[in-house]
Amino acid sequence: MSLEKVKDIKSAEILTIGTEILLGDIVDTNSAWISGRLADLGVSIFRHTTVGDNPKRIVNAMREAASRADLVITTGGLGPTSDDLTNECLAELAGVRMVEYPEARRHIDEKFRKFGRKPSPSNYKQALLPEGTEMIPNPLGTAPGALLAAEGAVFATLPGVPSEMKGMFEDTLAPFVRERSDGVIVSRTLWFIGIGESALAERVQEFLDADDPTVAPLAGQGKVRLRITTRKKSREAALATIEPVEREILSRLGENFFGYDNETMESAVARLLTERGLTLALAESCTGGLIAKRLTDLPGSSAFLVEGLVTYSNRSKERLLGVRHETLLAHGAVSAETAREMAEGARRGAETDFGLSVTGVAGPGGGTQEKPVGLVWVGLSDADGTQAKKLDLSAWARSREAIRERTANLALDYLRQRVEGSA
Amino acid sequence: MSLEKVKDIKSAEILTIGTEILLGDIVDTNSAWISGRLADLGVSIFRHTTVGDNPKRIVNAMREAASRADLVITTGGLGPTSDDLTNECLAELAGVRMVEYPEARRHIDEKFRKFGRKPSPSNYKQALLPEGTEMIPNPLGTAPGALLAAEGAVFATLPGVPSEMKGMFEDTLAPFVRERSDGVIVSRTLWFIGIGESALAERVQEFLDADDPTVAPLAGQGKVRLRITTRKKSREAALATIEPVEREILSRLGENFFGYDNETMESAVARLLTERGLTLALAESCTGGLIAKRLTDLPGSSAFLVEGLVTYSNRSKERLLGVRHETLLAHGAVSAETAREMAEGARRGAETDFGLSVTGVAGPGGGTQEKPVGLVWVGLSDADGTQAKKLDLSAWARSREAIRERTANLALDYLRQRVEGSA
Repeated sequence: MSLEKVKDIKSAEILTIGTEILLGDIVDTNSAWISGRLADLGVSIFRHTTVGDNPKRIVNAMREAASRADLVITTGGLGPTSDDLTNECLAELAGVRMVEYPEARRHIDEKFRKFGRKPSPSNYKQALLPEGTEMIPNPLGTAPGALLAAEGAVFATLPGVPSEMKGMFEDTLAPFVRERSDGVIVSRTLWFIGIGESALAERVQEFLDADDPTVAPLAGQGKVRLRITTRKKSREAALATIEPVEREILSRLGENFFGYDNETMESAVARLLTERGLTLALAESCTGGLIAKRLTDLPGSSAFLVEGLVTYSNRSKERLLGVRHETLLAHGAVSAETAREMAEGARRGAETDFGLSVTGVAGPGGGTQEKPVGLVWVGLSDADGTQAKKLDLSAWARSREAIRERTANLALDYLRQRVEGSA
Repeated sequence: MSLEKVKDIKSAEILTIGTEILLGDIVDTNSAWISGRLADLGVSIFRHTTVGDNPKRIVNAMREAASRADLVITTGGLGPTSDDLTNECLAELAGVRMVEYPEARRHIDEKFRKFGRKPSPSNYKQALLPEGTEMIPNPLGTAPGALLAAEGAVFATLPGVPSEMKGMFEDTLAPFVRERSDGVIVSRTLWFIGIGESALAERVQEFLDADDPTVAPLAGQGKVRLRITTRKKSREAALATIEPVEREILSRLGENFFGYDNETMESAVARLLTERGLTLALAESCTGGLIAKRLTDLPGSSAFLVEGLVTYSNRSKERLLGVRHETLLAHGAVSAETAREMAEGARRGAETDFGLSVTGVAGPGGGTQEKPVGLVWVGLSDADGTQAKKLDLSAWARSREAIRERTANLALDYLRQRVEGSA
C-alpha cells in the first residue's frame, strides 16, 4: 500500500517508545497532547501503548497497533544512540532497507554548523530512514520522522522531545490527517463544585446513559466535571448536538457550575474579580501559600491580588492581621472567630474589596478529638460584613495534599459565590 | 490459580483505563509513579497500555497483558458510574460473578457518614467485587480495589485518583509484591543544582557509558539528577555495586550536590533549618506564594517557617516589609536594592534567623529591554547582613511556570548554601 492510496483515517493508536518511561523516570505527556489534537481532527483513538527500547517488543507492538488502527503514531527512539531503534523497527515491519536521505544529512550538517559543533558518525544515523518513506522534517532538531504505510496502516514516527514532536505534528502530520479524516470530534467540559460525583450523576443519569452526545463524569479534589462529546461531519453539526444537552444539564445543576473546559477555581475567581475590578487579600494558615500560588500561576493576577499573608504562627496572626490575643486564647487558631478576624485583618490591612482566610488542621499531626485533622475554617470579609464557613475534610485525613487542595478549591468557591452574589 | 499459589512476580504491565486519557484530557501520571515503585521492588515492566471505558477493549487488553506479564496493575474505572467497568471486566475475564463485599459496603456507609451525606444506590456499586477477590482497602476513598488471579496472571485494580491509588499501592500491593519478587533493583538518585545537564554529564561520562551500575542523568527546573541503578540478589550486593560509584561522583560534583532520592530543594532546606533550630520568613513577589506553598507541603514546616508575605504590590512591599519608597522609585521593584530590603523587612518583622525574598519578572507580560522577562533578584538576610543575587532566567521567557519553579529552586538553594555555611 502506498501513502497516496490512503484515503480515509478514522482511527489511530499512539505507541510511545522508551525504557525511561517504563522505569517511571519520565511522565509521558506526548500521548495526551497528540490525543487531543487527533480528537480535534476527528480521529478516534482506542489505545495508547508504551514499550521499551527493545526491537522485538517494538516490532510486535507496531504490528498489533496496525491490526487495529488506520494510523499509528510513534514517539521516541529517533535519537543518535544505539538505543534509538524506532525507524529500524519500522523498516523491519515494512520489509524494506534503511537508506540515507540526502536532505536529512544536509539538515544535520546545518544544525551542527549553527551549534558550532561537528556531527559525529552516530549523528548521521539520523539521516537513515526506511526506504520509500515520506520524510517528516524536524525544524527544531536533527532527527526527521518517517511517514510510511506498513501492515495495512500508516505509520508516522516522531521524536520524544515534546517541542520537536509538536512542530512536526503541526507542520506535516496534521495536514496529512486532515485531508483524510471525515468529520470532527467536539468536546465541551462543564465544571461543578459543591456536589459529589454520584449525586451529580443521578441528576443527569439519562444523559450519561445516552450515546450521542456521550456525557462522562470525572471527579477530583472536590470538583466534578462532565464532558459532553460528539462526532459529526462539521463543527456546526457537533455544536447543535451538544448545546441542547448542555443547556438541560445547566438548568439542573447551574448553582454548582463554575466554568467551561480548562477553567479552574482560580481562573474562575480571577476572571470574576478582574471583570468587576475587585481586589483581594489572602490570609492563609494551613494552606501555607497554596491559594496565593494558584492565583499567581495566572498571568495578570496582580490586577486583583494585592497581597497574601502566610501566617503560620499565632504571633504572625496577631501582628500582621490584628487577630486579638483573647480570640486565640478563647477559641484557638482553628476557629470561626480566628478565621473571621484573619479575613477582616487581611482586607483592612491591604484595603481590598475582599479578604479571604483559611485556618485548619492539614495533618498528619496536630489533630485533637475536638479539632481533628481535616477541620478547616474559611473566613470571608467584604464591605457588608464577615462570615466564616466550616469545612469537614476529615475523610481525607491521611493526605495533607488532598486536604490542602480541597481547602483551596472550596475557599475559592466560597469567594466566587460571594462575588457572584455581589453583582 | 489462587493467589496463595503465586510465588514469583518478575514482570508487570500497567493498564490504564479511561476515555478521558485517550481523548487527551488528562495526562496519565499514575503509570510513571507505579513503574518507579515496581522498579524499586525488583519487578521489570515491559509495557504500559491505555484503553477507554469500553468493556470489550478492556477485557482484550487485560487478556493480552496477562499473556505477557506475571502481574497486571490497572488504574481507573472504579468509580460509581455506569462508565466505570474495570472490576466487571476482571470478573468477566476470570469467569466469576460480581458479589457484594460487606466490609466494602460498611466502608462506603462510614465515608458518607463522615461527609454528612447519604449513599445512593450507585455508590453501593463500589461494594461489588469479582467473587474470590482479595479486597484492596481504600482508606482515602470509597472504591476498593480487587486482587485476583486470572488467565495466569495476578490482577490488581486500583482507582485513577492518584492519592487513593498511591495509598492502596503502598498499604496492600507493595507488601504483596515484595514477598514474591526475587532480587531487588536498587536505585540511588543524587540531586544537583547550579550545573547544566551536559556539563555534569561530561564530568562523569565514563559512568554514564558503563553497564553496571547504570548511571542516567535527567534534568528539570534548574536541577539535574543522576540515577545509579543495579539489580542484584540482595540489597547488600546492590549497595556494594552502587556506593563506590556514588563516592567517586560526589568527589567530582560535591559542591553542586544537595540531596538523595526524593529530596527536593524544600525538603533539603526544611531538614537543615529544623536540625539547627533556625527560623525563616519569606517575602515573595513574582513567585507569589510558591516558595511558601512548597515549604508548607511538608508536615512539620511550622517548626521553622514563621511567616510568608506575598507582596505583589509596591504598597504591600512598603507597608508589610518596610521597603523604602525611595528605593522603589530609584531602582524599581525588580532590583537588588528592593530584594535586600524585602529580605531584611521579612526577617525583622517576623524576628527570624533568615529572611528570603524574591522579586522578578515572571512574564509573559511586564518585561522591558532593561528588565526582561526572566530577570529575578533574590535577597537573603541574616544576622551577618543582607545580600542579593541576580538570576537570569530569560531563556525560559516563554514559560511563567518554568521561571517560577526555577526561581523557587534557586532561591531555596541560595538559602541552603548560607545555612550550610553558617554551621
